[in-house]
Amino acid sequence: MNEEFITRLGLIKDETENIIESYMPDLRGDYGIISEAMNYSFRSGGKRLRPIIIRETYSLFGGRNDAIVSPFAAAIEMIHTYSLIHDDLPAMDNDDLRRGRATNHKVYGEAMAILAGDGLLNYAFETASKAFDACEDISDYRNVSKAMKALSSFPGINGMIGGQVVDLLVTEGKLPGTERVFKEMDLLKTSALIECSFVIGTSLAGASENDIDTMKEVGGLVGLAFQIRDDILDITGDEAKLGKSTGQDAKNGKQNFATMLGISRATDEVKRLSDEARTKLSKITSVRPGYSGFLNDLISYLTDREN
Amino acid sequence: MNEEFITRLGLIKDETENIIESYMPDLRGDYGIISEAMNYSFRSGGKRLRPIIIRETYSLFGGRNDAIVSPFAAAIEMIHTYSLIHDDLPAMDNDDLRRGRATNHKVYGEAMAILAGDGLLNYAFETASKAFDACEDISDYRNVSKAMKALSSFPGINGMIGGQVVDLLVTEGKLPGTERVFKEMDLLKTSALIECSFVIGTSLAGASENDIDTMKEVGGLVGLAFQIRDDILDITGDEAKLGKSTGQDAKNGKQNFATMLGISRATDEVKRLSDEARTKLSKITSVRPGYSGFLNDLISYLTDREN
Repeated sequence: MNEEFITRLGLIKDETENIIESYMPDLRGDYGIISEAMNYSFRSGGKRLRPIIIRETYSLFGGRNDAIVSPFAAAIEMIHTYSLIHDDLPAMDNDDLRRGRATNHKVYGEAMAILAGDGLLNYAFETASKAFDACEDISDYRNVSKAMKALSSFPGINGMIGGQVVDLLVTEGKLPGTERVFKEMDLLKTSALIECSFVIGTSLAGASENDIDTMKEVGGLVGLAFQIRDDILDITGDEAKLGKSTGQDAKNGKQNFATMLGISRATDEVKRLSDEARTKLSKITSVRPGYSGFLNDLISYLTDREN
Repeated sequence: MNEEFITRLGLIKDETENIIESYMPDLRGDYGIISEAMNYSFRSGGKRLRPIIIRETYSLFGGRNDAIVSPFAAAIEMIHTYSLIHDDLPAMDNDDLRRGRATNHKVYGEAMAILAGDGLLNYAFETASKAFDACEDISDYRNVSKAMKALSSFPGINGMIGGQVVDLLVTEGKLPGTERVFKEMDLLKTSALIECSFVIGTSLAGASENDIDTMKEVGGLVGLAFQIRDDILDITGDEAKLGKSTGQDAKNGKQNFATMLGISRATDEVKRLSDEARTKLSKITSVRPGYSGFLNDLISYLTDREN
């Protein structure tokens, strides 16, 4: 990956992190501990990939109002964070560590971790709703309400939560772990939120339905490639680079989509999906030629990554 | 209570139940079980109080578009239902029975119950967002976005979830159970969602900020009176009429706001709050005189109830 891109990504990540953290609550008083628990997980690192995609697609399509895009950038990361807290719970994956730190329930107890997850999911919508305050005309309202529909559907039962259910059923042996099922799991558990981010950014900028559809497709391709790359890294990855122990899925007797395909076919599939995403992106004619360079590089980076 | 009111309430309840149930998902395929778990708790009875309040206040202020109000009526009940599922979890209150039936986690397992709760909370916003499809002009968008702000804030960390946190901290002995704290708990855990319903109905109908504020106050008074009445019934209530075992709080070594005040003072307080709510309601001049009769009776009914 070229160094200029890496430097720029670092800057954008820091800027995005500052913005989204500014939306997090800081409560005092009797129940202030809930915001401490929410912040503990929210501020524990992470690539900030989903908010970066929202901000980048928004500006790619000419969006220029921070008061409209920033609440959604913060909201998508809140949803991502809640899903990790609930996923780590004893009744779910029962993980003690996440990104090298104790998981939320290990620090705050199981009951508070459930509430911190609920709190983040709910606060995501409270935060995104702040974008309505910046609406000036009916087009603004249309764009924000379109983004609100995306924010409430992709993470839900026909998206990310559906993926958690598939994962749970496979783990409990109630659903056979076939190639089709593992692909469905990757599409729902991870890809849905990345697709969502592309749709939100594009919708908020007031892009045409045609462009929103194309960017949704780009998001679906990138999201699946990203997760298959994750599946591969879980088997072949360097623990030091990843900052987490690999072979988790194999150790838990779990398979994933990449193990079903075999590493070689899975690697080819990541390349194919990533190429297709970049080709689709290049055909968007409503933005200045060459202007999508950063997003193009981001797609390459996400699907070639070593961590 | 007059018989005419009871008959009318029964009809309105049935109608409301049909409407809100029509918004529930009915998924098939690999992860269809999540919608079964969500429906199990959603369709297990209940007063449907919050959606009834939304629909009644909406029509009181002249609202006439079902496609705008119904999604919110369904959404508030989804939020109420998710809160009960999560509240019953082993890590929280660890209840086996709710409204005479096995709790969600007893039927579907703990992991699925967590996901069913998450699913309902998320689906509430997905459902409410459908009201945007019925918006025709900028006033519609303004009203719906105002209602969306209420739907996302009252149930959240500064409302219902905050109340759950206070409850948890008192139970764990981390917060002293004083009169002030128990009152705060009643206000947050229960009153917030009732207040929310008054605000949503009024906002959707395009009422003035002044009227929205008044109805918010009415909702706050009714909500607190309703919960103190619940606290009293938990001590003195008739198990057969209530359909649940009484003395729960006392049995768990728990106190509540009514035990802190003493039954006599608590009863007086319910009457005072209820009277004040009806007085405030009667001073709304923007609706036809006498038109608020049903809502007036509903307030009396809720605060005098034996179950």
